[in-house]
Amino acid sequence: MKRTLLILTAALLCCGLHAQNIVELPAPMKNAHMTLFQALEQRASVRSFKTDEILDQTLAELLWAARGINRPDGRLTAPTAMNNQEICLYVCREDGCYLYDAKGNCLVRTSEKDVRKDIAGRQTSVAEAPVFLVLVADLNKYGDITEHAITYGSVDCGYVSQNICLACEALGLATVPRAGMDQEVLKKELGLADGQVLLINHPVGYEK
Amino acid sequence: MKRTLLILTAALLCCGLHAQNIVELPAPMKNAHMTLFQALEQRASVRSFKTDEILDQTLAELLWAARGINRPDGRLTAPTAMNNQEICLYVCREDGCYLYDAKGNCLVRTSEKDVRKDIAGRQTSVAEAPVFLVLVADLNKYGDITEHAITYGSVDCGYVSQNICLACEALGLATVPRAGMDQEVLKKELGLADGQVLLINHPVGYEK
Repeated sequence: MKRTLLILTAALLCCGLHAQNIVELPAPMKNAHMTLFQALEQRASVRSFKTDEILDQTLAELLWAARGINRPDGRLTAPTAMNNQEICLYVCREDGCYLYDAKGNCLVRTSEKDVRKDIAGRQTSVAEAPVFLVLVADLNKYGDITEHAITYGSVDCGYVSQNICLACEALGLATVPRAGMDQEVLKKELGLADGQVLLINHPVGYEK
Repeated sequence: MKRTLLILTAALLCCGLHAQNIVELPAPMKNAHMTLFQALEQRASVRSFKTDEILDQTLAELLWAARGINRPDGRLTAPTAMNNQEICLYVCREDGCYLYDAKGNCLVRTSEKDVRKDIAGRQTSVAEAPVFLVLVADLNKYGDITEHAITYGSVDCGYVSQNICLACEALGLATVPRAGMDQEVLKKELGLADGQVLLINHPVGYEK
């Protein structure tokens, strides 16, 4: 009996840790009805957000659109040079920072810190967005970090960022792509290595 | 009577020159019915094309989607850093090379040369595409051409390129973004100045 209790307690603790560090996402439905051309017609940068939360289901749609897997061989909605898939997508919100795992359809926690103000910086109007998406190019995937690698990584970041812009329109969300953010804080809280370059961030929420 | 004939002849000659150097495009209808999420689900690179022509109406939809004007203040379907609108979009086909003028909804000829093979290079499978779109970042719009300008221009190129990838899906066309092309030939035939950087090209056509 004691042993059973011990095992049960251990199992519950494990689940607790798991729940803390891995957030499973609902399967994306991909059924937003807006046409591509409507999304292109409506695309516009928004810099003022309500504090309303984004449902996990909506977040799952958005992350899949950004750089989700759209083929059995693991290829993505966003092209990358030589299929390097070097753009890493992080989700930063009140309860911490997470790396989006497209294959596992889950978020893997990198920090418990709320870094949204560190991303917003002086542009305080965007700081109230419930979620920031942060795009990092892992240039180590190119071997040497040449000028070409920086160019390819930056172009590839644009693909993901435009997917986010358009998907926000289709999902009734608002966003703006931004380059400014506190690089030092984010490198630490996202756990970035040398060669992993912070390029673009997107505050995401409902337009105020 | 002689004078009237002279004026008429002059007018016709002018129209002829105009027709050669400016190709007016039909107004984009923006009514392709594919949803954004369907386009994302289907996005895939294609490297083999039929030689079938692309209708001007279809080309007009594609160019508008890529970096057309979607607001009365002249802002575009693709975001650009500080609204610099530095990505220039060229159309290269059998009858020559053209710069897309989003405001005028027309093509402005830069060359009568067919440069498609110069863009395709060794990747002969793409050379039969009826149209190549070529994306150039005009980094002069940033003032000094710093590392930041190169990064911003490259990210901004990715926005336009992803619009092309997705619009091709919605329009029943196929494409692949490519970095390789004969830079010397293209600089000459597109009439590029220093600081105007060739970044990405898209063969566009119907999948073979």
